[in-house]
Amino acid sequence: MTDFQPTERTQLRRRPTRGHYDSETVFRILDEAFVCHVGFAVEGQPYVIPTTFGRVGRTLYIHGSAMSRMLRTLADGVQVCVTVTLVDGLVFARSAFHNSMNYRSVLMLGRALPVESSEEKLEALQAFTEHVMPGRWKEIRPPTDQELKGTSVLRLPLEEVSAKVRTGPPIDDEEDYAMRIWAGVLPLALTPGAPLTDDRVPAGIHPPAYVTEYSRVKV
Amino acid sequence: MTDFQPTERTQLRRRPTRGHYDSETVFRILDEAFVCHVGFAVEGQPYVIPTTFGRVGRTLYIHGSAMSRMLRTLADGVQVCVTVTLVDGLVFARSAFHNSMNYRSVLMLGRALPVESSEEKLEALQAFTEHVMPGRWKEIRPPTDQELKGTSVLRLPLEEVSAKVRTGPPIDDEEDYAMRIWAGVLPLALTPGAPLTDDRVPAGIHPPAYVTEYSRVKV
Repeated sequence: MTDFQPTERTQLRRRPTRGHYDSETVFRILDEAFVCHVGFAVEGQPYVIPTTFGRVGRTLYIHGSAMSRMLRTLADGVQVCVTVTLVDGLVFARSAFHNSMNYRSVLMLGRALPVESSEEKLEALQAFTEHVMPGRWKEIRPPTDQELKGTSVLRLPLEEVSAKVRTGPPIDDEEDYAMRIWAGVLPLALTPGAPLTDDRVPAGIHPPAYVTEYSRVKV
Repeated sequence: MTDFQPTERTQLRRRPTRGHYDSETVFRILDEAFVCHVGFAVEGQPYVIPTTFGRVGRTLYIHGSAMSRMLRTLADGVQVCVTVTLVDGLVFARSAFHNSMNYRSVLMLGRALPVESSEEKLEALQAFTEHVMPGRWKEIRPPTDQELKGTSVLRLPLEEVSAKVRTGPPIDDEEDYAMRIWAGVLPLALTPGAPLTDDRVPAGIHPPAYVTEYSRVKV
């Protein structure tokens, strides 16, 4: 299934077998990740800013504050590339040339538009929160009207999108397999540690299950 | 110490206390990370590509293959923004507005130039390998002349650089501290799992210490 039609700009040319254009693969990567890198250009100079994101169907919501200066000048939106990368492991090959990394990434191109209505902004903030901290939204104080006004959110329609995935062991030159050195994959994953309770939490309140059992992988 | 002079483009305006401009902070982040996001623009459209990197002094080396089409057309180099981000934890505040993330990031602006000489290319590949896989270079087969020719490497001088760091507990509105909910930080770190030995490694060869004791944090 290739429900995201590859374009001249998203089609992978080098190593085309790593390219994926189906929403199932794309959404699985987006839903496991929570940090994206937003690229935009000002007078030819690109900027790449890390930020958290949320997804509602085929819409990506990103915090717009980092780009706020630019947004004020561009009523018709700003051309962006939003990239999400999950690192899955280091691939130790037998030659320097074939060392690699297992990863999954998604590249999204389009025009990011500021979210104007308070209703959509609230929906986006809920999407952010539930994307990064599933279970948290219902417990916390929702944004006030003033906070909503002070929050800058961008909407990017997911239309021109591709995923890139590398998995598996090293692929070495045939003659190098005889070398008597270790080769293989060292898996890597973003892993939670023990929660640190804020000093001002009232006594007797413990971290909830959505914190102690935090996991990015949906089961 | 601010040995990277802040510029109009790298000076943090929002939350200026999170900004750092000293090489010690910058290099510590760069040396712990190994994935960067490279941003460049083609006819106004930005692209953001994840790749590994190496550092030699005040020079960043990145794989150039992702940008090879562009490089062929630009003899005088390409304006890039290279961003490196380490995620340290999720900050659970008492209100949606104050949820945050603990992170350390470095933003590097400049002109990336193709490395032409075989000597510098070899030095860069060694820097990549030892940056991502410290201890590996001396054991593996070094690149052949043909592999060196087929490898595209870019050099970015580290001149216009800033770091951004958020640490510590949530900062809530004073009146929200009375809420009877948990708040605090969930630490996150990229953590190695058990090494997966490639099927074709000869019997009796075990993963070396630089794999089994892999750690990004220098002690």
